Amino acid sequence: MRYRLDLAYDGTQFTGWQVQPGGARTVQAVVEDALGKLLRRPIHLTGSGRTDTGVHAHQQPTHFETEQPIADLDQLIYRLARLLPPDVKPTALLPVAPDWHARFSATERTYHYHVYQRPDPFRRFFAAFVGQPLDVDAMNAAAALLLGEHDFTTFSKTGGNTAHYRCRVREAQWVADAEAATLRFAISANRFLRGQVRLLVGTLLDVGRGRLKVAGFGAALAAQERARSSGAAPAQGLTLWRVAYQHAALAEEGFAPRIP
Amino acid sequence: MRYRLDLAYDGTQFTGWQVQPGGARTVQAVVEDALGKLLRRPIHLTGSGRTDTGVHAHQQPTHFETEQPIADLDQLIYRLARLLPPDVKPTALLPVAPDWHARFSATERTYHYHVYQRPDPFRRFFAAFVGQPLDVDAMNAAAALLLGEHDFTTFSKTGGNTAHYRCRVREAQWVADAEAATLRFAISANRFLRGQVRLLVGTLLDVGRGRLKVAGFGAALAAQERARSSGAAPAQGLTLWRVAYQHAALAEEGFAPRIP
Repeated sequence: MRYRLDLAYDGTQFTGWQVQPGGARTVQAVVEDALGKLLRRPIHLTGSGRTDTGVHAHQQPTHFETEQPIADLDQLIYRLARLLPPDVKPTALLPVAPDWHARFSATERTYHYHVYQRPDPFRRFFAAFVGQPLDVDAMNAAAALLLGEHDFTTFSKTGGNTAHYRCRVREAQWVADAEAATLRFAISANRFLRGQVRLLVGTLLDVGRGRLKVAGFGAALAAQERARSSGAAPAQGLTLWRVAYQHAALAEEGFAPRIP
Repeated sequence: MRYRLDLAYDGTQFTGWQVQPGGARTVQAVVEDALGKLLRRPIHLTGSGRTDTGVHAHQQPTHFETEQPIADLDQLIYRLARLLPPDVKPTALLPVAPDWHARFSATERTYHYHVYQRPDPFRRFFAAFVGQPLDVDAMNAAAALLLGEHDFTTFSKTGGNTAHYRCRVREAQWVADAEAATLRFAISANRFLRGQVRLLVGTLLDVGRGRLKVAGFGAALAAQERARSSGAAPAQGLTLWRVAYQHAALAEEGFAPRIP
Protein backbone atom coordinates (compact mmCIF):
# COMPACT_ATOMS: atom_id res chain seq x y z
CA MET A 1 0.00 0.00 0.00
CA ARG A 2 1.19 3.51 -0.79
CA TYR A 3 0.57 6.43 1.56
CA ARG A 4 1.01 10.15 1.19
CA LEU A 5 2.44 11.91 4.26
CA ASP A 6 2.70 15.71 4.30
CA LEU A 7 5.23 17.32 6.61
CA ALA A 8 5.81 20.84 7.98
CA TYR A 9 9.23 21.68 9.34
CA ASP A 10 11.35 24.45 10.76
CA GLY A 11 14.57 23.91 8.81
CA THR A 12 16.79 25.88 11.23
CA GLN A 13 18.29 22.81 12.85
CA PHE A 14 18.13 20.38 9.92
CA THR A 15 20.86 19.73 7.37
CA GLY A 16 18.20 19.91 4.68
CA TRP A 17 15.72 17.28 3.55
CA GLN A 18 17.78 14.45 2.17
CA VAL A 19 19.41 11.56 4.04
CA GLN A 20 23.17 12.00 3.99
CA PRO A 21 26.06 9.66 4.63
CA GLY A 22 27.49 10.18 8.12
CA GLY A 23 24.15 10.55 9.87
CA ALA A 24 23.56 14.31 9.59
CA ARG A 25 20.23 15.41 11.11
CA THR A 26 18.05 15.64 8.01
CA VAL A 27 14.26 15.74 7.84
CA GLN A 28 14.10 12.56 5.80
CA ALA A 29 16.30 10.66 8.26
CA VAL A 30 14.37 11.84 11.34
CA VAL A 31 10.94 11.02 9.88
CA GLU A 32 12.03 7.68 8.37
CA ASP A 33 13.38 6.72 11.77
CA ALA A 34 10.13 7.64 13.59
CA LEU A 35 7.89 5.95 11.01
CA GLY A 36 10.10 2.86 11.09
CA LYS A 37 9.70 2.62 14.88
CA LEU A 38 5.91 2.95 14.67
CA LEU A 39 5.50 0.51 11.76
CA ARG A 40 8.24 -1.84 13.01
CA ARG A 41 10.06 -2.06 9.68
CA PRO A 42 12.43 0.11 7.63
CA ILE A 43 10.53 2.85 5.78
CA HIS A 44 11.80 4.80 2.79
CA LEU A 45 10.29 8.25 2.27
CA THR A 46 10.21 9.93 -1.13
CA GLY A 47 9.85 13.70 -0.92
CA SER A 48 8.40 16.08 -3.51
CA GLY A 49 11.88 17.57 -3.74
CA ARG A 50 14.91 18.45 -1.64
CA THR A 51 15.16 21.49 0.56
CA ASP A 52 18.57 22.88 1.49
CA THR A 53 20.02 23.31 4.98
CA GLY A 54 18.01 25.92 6.88
CA VAL A 55 15.10 26.02 4.41
CA HIS A 56 11.61 25.47 5.87
CA ALA A 57 8.54 23.66 4.60
CA HIS A 58 4.92 24.53 5.21
CA GLN A 59 3.93 21.54 3.07
CA GLN A 60 6.43 18.92 1.97
CA PRO A 61 4.43 16.01 0.49
CA THR A 62 6.09 12.59 0.65
CA HIS A 63 5.11 8.99 0.01
CA PHE A 64 6.06 5.63 1.42
CA GLU A 65 5.10 1.98 0.96
CA THR A 66 3.90 -0.66 3.38
CA GLU A 67 3.29 -4.37 2.69
CA GLN A 68 0.11 -4.42 4.77
CA PRO A 69 -2.55 -1.68 4.85
CA ILE A 70 -2.31 0.59 7.90
CA ALA A 71 -5.28 -0.25 10.12
CA ASP A 72 -5.82 3.15 11.75
CA LEU A 73 -4.43 6.22 9.99
CA ASP A 74 -5.77 8.63 12.62
CA GLN A 75 -3.90 6.73 15.31
CA LEU A 76 -0.69 6.58 13.27
CA ILE A 77 -0.58 10.33 12.55
CA TYR A 78 -1.35 11.03 16.22
CA ARG A 79 1.49 8.78 17.37
CA LEU A 80 3.84 10.17 14.71
CA ALA A 81 3.10 13.75 15.82
CA ARG A 82 3.99 12.79 19.39
CA LEU A 83 7.12 10.84 18.48
CA LEU A 84 8.66 13.40 16.11
CA PRO A 85 10.78 16.24 17.54
CA PRO A 86 9.15 19.68 17.85
CA ASP A 87 10.63 21.04 14.63
CA VAL A 88 8.96 18.60 12.23
CA LYS A 89 5.31 17.57 12.32
CA PRO A 90 2.95 15.63 10.05
CA THR A 91 0.05 17.63 8.61
CA ALA A 92 -1.73 14.95 6.55
CA LEU A 93 -1.67 11.19 6.02
CA LEU A 94 -3.82 9.42 3.46
CA PRO A 95 -3.80 6.36 1.17
CA VAL A 96 -2.95 7.06 -2.47
CA ALA A 97 -2.99 5.11 -5.73
CA PRO A 98 0.05 2.86 -6.36
CA ASP A 99 1.24 5.17 -9.15
CA TRP A 100 0.97 8.41 -7.12
CA HIS A 101 4.45 9.83 -6.68
CA ALA A 102 5.34 12.74 -4.37
CA ARG A 103 7.87 14.03 -6.87
CA PHE A 104 6.78 12.94 -10.34
CA SER A 105 3.02 13.46 -9.89
CA ALA A 106 3.52 17.08 -8.77
CA THR A 107 2.25 19.63 -11.27
CA GLU A 108 3.33 22.82 -9.51
CA ARG A 109 5.50 23.94 -6.61
CA THR A 110 5.20 27.23 -4.73
CA TYR A 111 7.93 28.82 -2.61
CA HIS A 112 7.63 31.84 -0.32
CA TYR A 113 10.58 34.04 0.55
CA HIS A 114 10.21 36.45 3.47
CA VAL A 115 12.21 39.64 4.02
CA TYR A 116 12.03 41.97 7.02
CA GLN A 117 13.32 45.51 7.05
CA ARG A 118 13.10 46.58 10.70
CA PRO A 119 15.21 44.79 13.32
CA ASP A 120 12.79 42.30 14.88
CA PRO A 121 13.70 39.47 17.23
CA PHE A 122 10.60 37.49 16.20
CA ARG A 123 11.29 37.15 12.48
CA ARG A 124 14.97 36.20 12.37
CA PHE A 125 14.51 32.42 11.91
CA PHE A 126 11.96 32.63 9.11
CA ALA A 127 12.95 35.70 7.11
CA ALA A 128 16.07 37.48 5.87
CA PHE A 129 16.94 40.97 7.12
CA VAL A 130 17.48 43.70 4.52
CA GLY A 131 18.18 47.09 6.07
CA GLN A 132 18.27 49.21 2.91
CA PRO A 133 15.08 50.66 1.41
CA LEU A 134 13.77 48.50 -1.44
CA ASP A 135 11.99 49.62 -4.61
CA VAL A 136 9.21 47.03 -4.63
CA ASP A 137 7.77 48.27 -7.93
CA ALA A 138 11.11 47.68 -9.65
CA MET A 139 11.39 44.23 -8.02
CA ASN A 140 7.93 43.35 -9.35
CA ALA A 141 8.73 44.68 -12.82
CA ALA A 142 11.77 42.39 -12.84
CA ALA A 143 9.82 39.45 -11.38
CA ALA A 144 7.23 39.80 -14.15
CA LEU A 145 9.99 38.98 -16.67
CA LEU A 146 10.15 35.49 -15.13
CA LEU A 147 6.57 34.59 -16.11
CA GLY A 148 6.17 31.97 -18.79
CA GLU A 149 8.77 29.42 -19.87
CA HIS A 150 12.45 30.38 -19.72
CA ASP A 151 15.87 28.83 -19.44
CA PHE A 152 17.05 29.54 -15.88
CA THR A 153 20.72 28.64 -16.21
CA THR A 154 21.61 32.10 -14.82
CA PHE A 155 19.78 31.22 -11.61
CA SER A 156 21.02 27.67 -11.12
CA LYS A 157 23.79 26.20 -9.00
CA THR A 158 26.66 24.27 -10.51
CA GLY A 159 26.56 20.55 -9.86
CA GLY A 160 22.81 20.21 -10.33
CA ASN A 161 21.98 16.99 -12.12
CA THR A 162 19.39 18.12 -14.65
CA ALA A 163 18.77 17.39 -18.31
CA HIS A 164 17.71 20.96 -19.03
CA TYR A 165 17.21 24.34 -17.33
CA ARG A 166 13.76 25.29 -18.58
CA CYS A 167 11.02 26.09 -16.05
CA ARG A 168 7.48 27.36 -16.61
CA VAL A 169 6.70 30.11 -14.08
CA ARG A 170 3.02 30.87 -13.41
CA GLU A 171 3.39 33.36 -10.53
CA ALA A 172 6.29 35.55 -9.36
CA GLN A 173 5.31 38.48 -7.20
CA TRP A 174 6.45 40.53 -4.23
CA VAL A 175 3.83 41.74 -1.76
CA ALA A 176 4.90 44.38 0.75
CA ASP A 177 3.34 44.97 4.15
CA ALA A 178 4.41 48.56 4.83
CA GLU A 179 3.13 48.61 8.41
CA ALA A 180 5.04 45.47 9.39
CA ALA A 181 8.01 46.45 7.22
CA THR A 182 8.04 42.99 5.63
CA LEU A 183 7.95 41.63 2.08
CA ARG A 184 6.94 38.26 0.75
CA PHE A 185 7.96 36.86 -2.60
CA ALA A 186 5.75 34.05 -3.94
CA ILE A 187 6.87 32.03 -6.94
CA SER A 188 5.06 29.07 -8.53
CA ALA A 189 6.45 26.94 -11.33
CA ASN A 190 6.17 23.46 -12.74
CA ARG A 191 9.71 22.71 -11.53
CA PHE A 192 12.65 24.43 -9.82
CA LEU A 193 16.38 24.01 -10.27
CA ARG A 194 18.81 23.62 -7.38
CA GLY A 195 19.25 26.94 -5.57
CA GLN A 196 17.01 28.73 -8.07
CA VAL A 197 14.70 30.62 -5.71
CA ARG A 198 17.48 31.94 -3.48
CA LEU A 199 19.50 33.06 -6.53
CA LEU A 200 16.43 34.78 -8.00
CA VAL A 201 15.67 36.50 -4.69
CA GLY A 202 19.28 37.60 -4.21
CA THR A 203 19.26 39.19 -7.66
CA LEU A 204 15.77 40.73 -7.31
CA LEU A 205 16.91 42.31 -4.02
CA ASP A 206 19.74 43.96 -5.95
CA VAL A 207 17.11 45.38 -8.30
CA GLY A 208 15.24 46.65 -5.20
CA ARG A 209 18.42 48.28 -3.86
CA GLY A 210 19.00 50.00 -7.20
CA ARG A 211 22.23 48.11 -7.90
CA LEU A 212 20.72 46.45 -10.98
CA LYS A 213 18.14 47.87 -13.37
CA VAL A 214 15.05 45.95 -14.47
CA ALA A 215 16.44 45.73 -18.00
CA GLY A 216 19.71 44.41 -16.59
CA PHE A 217 17.81 41.71 -14.74
CA GLY A 218 16.09 40.72 -17.99
CA ALA A 219 19.44 40.65 -19.77
CA ALA A 220 20.91 38.46 -17.01
CA LEU A 221 18.05 35.97 -17.42
CA ALA A 222 18.46 35.93 -21.22
CA ALA A 223 22.25 35.53 -20.98
CA GLN A 224 22.00 32.02 -19.47
CA GLU A 225 25.24 32.65 -17.54
CA ARG A 226 25.64 31.87 -13.84
CA ALA A 227 28.01 34.79 -13.34
CA ARG A 228 25.12 37.18 -14.04
CA SER A 229 23.20 36.36 -10.81
CA SER A 230 23.89 38.29 -7.62
CA GLY A 231 24.35 35.25 -5.42
CA ALA A 232 21.94 33.42 -3.16
CA ALA A 233 19.72 35.09 -0.56
CA PRO A 234 20.01 33.49 2.93
CA ALA A 235 18.39 30.09 3.47
CA GLN A 236 16.27 31.05 6.49
CA GLY A 237 13.99 33.28 4.40
CA LEU A 238 12.85 30.42 2.17
CA THR A 239 9.84 28.14 2.75
CA LEU A 240 8.53 25.41 0.47
CA TRP A 241 4.92 26.53 0.71
CA ARG A 242 2.77 24.19 -1.33
CA VAL A 243 2.97 21.43 -3.90
CA ALA A 244 0.02 20.85 -6.24
CA TYR A 245 -1.03 17.53 -7.81
CA GLN A 246 -3.50 16.52 -10.46
CA HIS A 247 -5.49 14.42 -8.01
CA ALA A 248 -6.67 17.52 -6.19
CA ALA A 249 -9.69 15.95 -4.49
CA LEU A 250 -7.59 13.14 -3.07
CA ALA A 251 -4.92 15.56 -1.92
CA GLU A 252 -7.38 17.81 -0.09
CA GLU A 253 -9.21 14.96 1.60
CA GLY A 254 -6.51 14.35 4.16
CA PHE A 255 -5.92 17.96 5.07
CA ALA A 256 -7.58 18.24 8.43
CA PRO A 257 -6.43 15.07 10.14
CA ARG A 258 -7.40 14.80 13.76
CA ILE A 259 -4.03 15.38 15.40
CA PRO A 260 -3.60 14.78 18.14
CA MET B 1 18.76 63.83 30.41
CA ARG B 2 16.26 61.01 30.57
CA TYR B 3 15.49 58.80 27.58
CA ARG B 4 12.83 56.25 26.92
CA LEU B 5 14.01 53.11 25.11
CA ASP B 6 11.48 50.49 24.01
CA LEU B 7 12.69 46.93 23.47
CA ALA B 8 11.31 43.84 21.74
CA TYR B 9 12.74 40.47 22.65
CA ASP B 10 12.43 36.77 22.09
CA GLY B 11 12.70 35.51 25.68
CA THR B 12 13.61 31.92 24.73
CA GLN B 13 17.30 32.30 25.54
CA PHE B 14 17.08 34.94 28.27
CA THR B 15 16.90 34.29 32.00
CA GLY B 16 14.15 36.91 32.19
CA TRP B 17 14.40 40.68 32.27
CA GLN B 18 16.22 41.53 35.45
CA VAL B 19 19.97 41.63 36.08
CA GLN B 20 20.95 38.75 38.34
CA PRO B 21 23.98 38.05 40.46
CA GLY B 22 26.32 35.59 38.76
CA GLY B 23 26.03 37.06 35.30
CA ALA B 24 23.01 35.16 33.91
CA ARG B 25 22.04 36.26 30.39
CA THR B 26 19.19 38.65 31.11
CA VAL B 27 17.69 41.27 28.81
CA GLN B 28 18.57 44.11 31.17
CA ALA B 29 22.21 42.99 31.43
CA VAL B 30 22.65 42.55 27.67
CA VAL B 31 21.11 45.94 26.80
CA GLU B 32 22.86 47.82 29.63
CA ASP B 33 26.13 46.39 28.38
CA ALA B 34 25.51 47.45 24.75
CA LEU B 35 24.29 50.93 25.71
CA GLY B 36 27.27 51.36 28.03
CA LYS B 37 29.66 50.54 25.20
CA LEU B 38 28.01 53.04 22.84
CA LEU B 39 27.73 55.84 25.44
CA ARG B 40 31.12 55.02 27.03
CA ARG B 41 29.78 55.02 30.58
CA PRO B 42 27.81 52.63 32.83
CA ILE B 43 24.08 52.80 32.05
CA HIS B 44 21.28 51.66 34.35
CA LEU B 45 18.04 50.64 32.62
CA THR B 46 14.71 50.76 34.44
CA GLY B 47 12.08 48.53 32.85
CA SER B 48 8.30 48.86 33.00
CA GLY B 49 8.32 45.57 34.90
CA ARG B 50 10.07 42.21 35.02
CA THR B 51 9.41 39.37 32.65
CA ASP B 52 10.20 35.79 33.69
CA THR B 53 12.60 33.38 32.01
CA GLY B 54 11.28 32.46 28.56
CA VAL B 55 8.65 35.23 28.44
CA HIS B 56 8.75 37.52 25.38
CA ALA B 57 8.16 41.24 24.92
CA HIS B 58 6.67 43.00 21.93
CA GLN B 59 7.05 46.30 23.78
CA GLN B 60 9.07 46.61 26.98
CA PRO B 61 9.48 50.33 27.69
CA THR B 62 12.53 51.31 29.73
CA HIS B 63 14.30 54.51 30.72
CA PHE B 64 17.88 55.55 31.40
CA GLU B 65 19.80 58.71 32.31
CA THR B 66 22.72 60.45 30.67
CA GLU B 67 24.67 63.46 31.96
CA GLN B 68 24.89 65.03 28.50
CA PRO B 69 22.12 65.09 25.90
CA ILE B 70 22.56 62.47 23.17
CA ALA B 71 23.49 64.32 20.00
CA ASP B 72 21.98 61.99 17.42
CA LEU B 73 19.20 59.65 18.56
CA ASP B 74 18.71 58.15 15.08
CA GLN B 75 22.36 57.20 14.98
CA LEU B 76 22.31 55.74 18.50
CA ILE B 77 19.29 53.50 17.86
CA TYR B 78 20.83 52.40 14.57
CA ARG B 79 24.10 51.47 16.27
CA LEU B 80 22.27 49.83 19.17
CA ALA B 81 20.22 47.70 16.76
CA ARG B 82 23.43 46.52 15.12
CA LEU B 83 25.31 45.88 18.37
CA LEU B 84 22.56 43.96 20.19
CA PRO B 85 22.23 40.19 19.59
CA PRO B 86 19.47 39.03 17.23
CA ASP B 87 16.99 38.17 20.00
CA VAL B 88 16.62 41.69 21.43
CA LYS B 89 16.12 44.85 19.40
CA PRO B 90 15.24 48.49 20.14
CA THR B 91 11.92 49.67 18.70
CA ALA B 92 11.89 53.31 19.88
CA LEU B 93 14.21 55.85 21.50
CA LEU B 94 13.08 59.32 22.52
CA PRO B 95 13.77 61.99 25.13
CA VAL B 96 11.28 62.17 28.00
CA ALA B 97 10.58 64.50 30.90
CA PRO B 98 12.80 64.06 34.00
CA ASP B 99 9.85 62.65 35.96
CA TRP B 100 8.78 60.14 33.32
CA HIS B 101 9.26 56.64 34.76
CA ALA B 102 9.02 53.42 32.73
CA ARG B 103 7.43 51.63 35.69
CA PHE B 104 5.62 54.22 37.78
CA SER B 105 4.24 56.36 34.93
CA ALA B 106 2.60 53.33 33.30
CA THR B 107 -1.19 53.39 33.45
CA GLU B 108 -1.95 50.02 31.86
CA ARG B 109 -0.16 46.85 30.82
CA THR B 110 -1.36 44.33 28.24
CA TYR B 111 -0.20 40.73 27.96
CA HIS B 112 -0.96 38.25 25.20
CA TYR B 113 -0.93 34.51 25.72
CA HIS B 114 -0.90 32.27 22.64
CA VAL B 115 -2.08 28.65 22.47
CA TYR B 116 -1.89 26.31 19.48
CA GLN B 117 -3.90 23.14 19.14
CA ARG B 118 -2.43 21.42 16.08
CA PRO B 119 1.19 20.23 16.10
CA ASP B 120 3.07 22.97 14.29
CA PRO B 121 6.84 23.41 14.10
CA PHE B 122 6.50 27.17 13.55
CA ARG B 123 4.63 28.10 16.73
CA ARG B 124 6.51 26.22 19.43
CA PHE B 125 8.70 29.08 20.69
CA PHE B 126 5.90 31.66 20.99
CA ALA B 127 2.86 29.65 22.03
CA ALA B 128 1.92 26.75 24.30
CA PHE B 129 0.56 23.51 22.84
CA VAL B 130 -2.78 22.22 24.13
CA GLY B 131 -3.91 19.05 22.37
CA GLN B 132 -7.34 18.66 23.99
CA PRO B 133 -10.41 20.45 22.56
CA LEU B 134 -11.16 23.67 24.46
CA ASP B 135 -14.54 25.23 25.22
CA VAL B 136 -13.72 28.83 24.31
CA ASP B 137 -17.17 30.11 25.34
CA ALA B 138 -16.67 28.74 28.86
CA MET B 139 -13.14 30.22 28.98
CA ASN B 140 -14.55 33.62 28.02
CA ALA B 141 -17.40 33.35 30.55
CA ALA B 142 -14.76 32.71 33.23
CA ALA B 143 -12.46 35.47 31.90
CA ALA B 144 -15.35 37.96 32.11
CA LEU B 145 -15.40 37.38 35.88
CA LEU B 146 -11.96 39.01 36.04
CA LEU B 147 -13.17 42.39 34.75
CA GLY B 148 -13.15 45.24 37.25
CA GLU B 149 -11.17 45.40 40.49
CA HIS B 150 -10.46 42.18 42.39
CA ASP B 151 -8.02 40.70 44.85
CA PHE B 152 -5.87 38.29 42.84
CA THR B 153 -4.18 36.41 45.69
CA THR B 154 -5.42 33.12 44.14
CA PHE B 155 -3.43 33.90 41.02
CA SER B 156 -0.21 35.15 42.60
CA LYS B 157 3.11 33.47 43.31
CA THR B 158 4.50 33.20 46.81
CA GLY B 159 7.46 35.43 47.49
CA GLY B 160 6.09 38.41 45.58
CA ASN B 161 6.93 41.64 47.36
CA THR B 162 3.66 43.55 47.16
CA ALA B 163 1.64 45.66 49.59
CA HIS B 164 -1.67 44.34 48.26
CA TYR B 165 -3.12 41.97 45.64
CA ARG B 166 -5.76 44.16 44.03
CA CYS B 167 -5.67 44.75 40.27
CA ARG B 168 -8.14 46.56 38.01
CA VAL B 169 -8.73 44.50 34.85
CA ARG B 170 -10.12 46.33 31.82
CA GLU B 171 -9.92 43.55 29.23
CA ALA B 172 -9.70 39.76 29.51
CA GLN B 173 -10.72 37.84 26.44
CA TRP B 174 -9.90 34.78 24.38
CA VAL B 175 -10.10 35.02 20.60
CA ALA B 176 -9.98 31.76 18.64
CA ASP B 177 -8.80 31.36 15.06
CA ALA B 178 -10.51 28.10 14.09
CA GLU B 179 -8.74 27.79 10.76
CA ALA B 180 -5.27 28.16 12.27
CA ALA B 181 -6.29 26.17 15.37
CA THR B 182 -4.86 28.88 17.61
CA LEU B 183 -6.17 30.96 20.53
CA ARG B 184 -5.00 34.26 21.91
CA PHE B 185 -5.78 35.54 25.39
CA ALA B 186 -5.43 39.32 25.83
CA ILE B 187 -5.52 40.82 29.32
CA SER B 188 -5.07 44.49 30.24
CA ALA B 189 -4.86 45.82 33.79
CA ASN B 190 -3.44 48.72 35.75
CA ARG B 191 -0.93 46.32 37.35
CA PHE B 192 -0.03 42.63 37.43
CA LEU B 193 1.28 40.44 40.24
CA ARG B 194 4.21 38.05 39.85
CA GLY B 195 3.18 35.02 37.79
CA GLN B 196 -0.41 36.26 37.56
CA VAL B 197 -1.05 35.89 33.82
CA ARG B 198 0.39 32.38 33.57
CA LEU B 199 -1.60 31.25 36.64
CA LEU B 200 -4.78 32.77 35.19
CA VAL B 201 -4.18 31.11 31.82
CA GLY B 202 -3.40 27.74 33.43
CA THR B 203 -6.68 27.87 35.31
CA LEU B 204 -8.73 29.19 32.36
CA LEU B 205 -7.37 26.30 30.25
CA ASP B 206 -8.75 23.90 32.88
CA VAL B 207 -12.15 25.60 32.40
CA GLY B 208 -11.72 25.07 28.66
CA ARG B 209 -10.91 21.38 29.16
CA GLY B 210 -14.02 20.95 31.34
CA ARG B 211 -12.02 20.15 34.47
CA LEU B 212 -13.31 23.28 36.24
CA LYS B 213 -16.72 24.94 35.84
CA VAL B 214 -17.11 28.68 35.28
CA ALA B 215 -18.71 29.02 38.74
CA GLY B 216 -15.76 27.11 40.22
CA PHE B 217 -13.38 29.57 38.59
CA GLY B 218 -15.33 32.47 40.12
CA ALA B 219 -15.23 30.75 43.52
CA ALA B 220 -11.46 30.25 43.20
CA LEU B 221 -10.97 33.97 42.50
CA ALA B 222 -13.20 34.93 45.44
CA ALA B 223 -11.46 32.49 47.80
CA GLN B 224 -8.15 34.41 47.71
CA GLU B 225 -6.26 31.14 48.19
CA ARG B 226 -3.25 30.15 46.08
CA ALA B 227 -4.15 26.46 46.26
CA ARG B 228 -7.25 27.16 44.15
CA SER B 229 -5.33 27.97 40.96
CA SER B 230 -4.44 25.19 38.51
CA GLY B 231 -0.76 26.12 38.22
CA ALA B 232 1.10 28.22 35.69
CA ALA B 233 0.79 27.83 31.92
CA PRO B 234 4.20 27.52 30.16
CA ALA B 235 6.35 30.66 29.84
CA GLN B 236 6.85 30.51 26.07
CA GLY B 237 3.20 31.35 25.38
CA LEU B 238 3.41 34.71 27.17
CA THR B 239 4.29 38.07 25.60
CA LEU B 240 4.32 41.48 27.25
CA TRP B 241 2.44 43.18 24.44
CA ARG B 242 2.06 46.85 25.29
CA VAL B 243 2.44 49.33 28.13
CA ALA B 244 0.36 52.50 28.09
CA TYR B 245 1.31 55.88 29.61
CA GLN B 246 -0.52 59.12 30.18
CA HIS B 247 1.80 61.03 27.85
CA ALA B 248 0.38 59.21 24.84
CA ALA B 249 1.50 61.73 22.25
CA LEU B 250 5.08 61.63 23.49
CA ALA B 251 5.05 57.86 23.54
CA GLU B 252 3.80 57.51 19.99
CA GLU B 253 6.23 60.05 18.57
CA GLY B 254 9.21 57.71 18.72
CA PHE B 255 7.47 54.68 17.26
CA ALA B 256 8.85 54.61 13.77
CA PRO B 257 12.53 55.28 14.33
CA ARG B 258 14.66 54.96 11.26
CA ILE B 259 16.46 51.74 12.05
CA PRO B 260 18.70 50.99 10.57
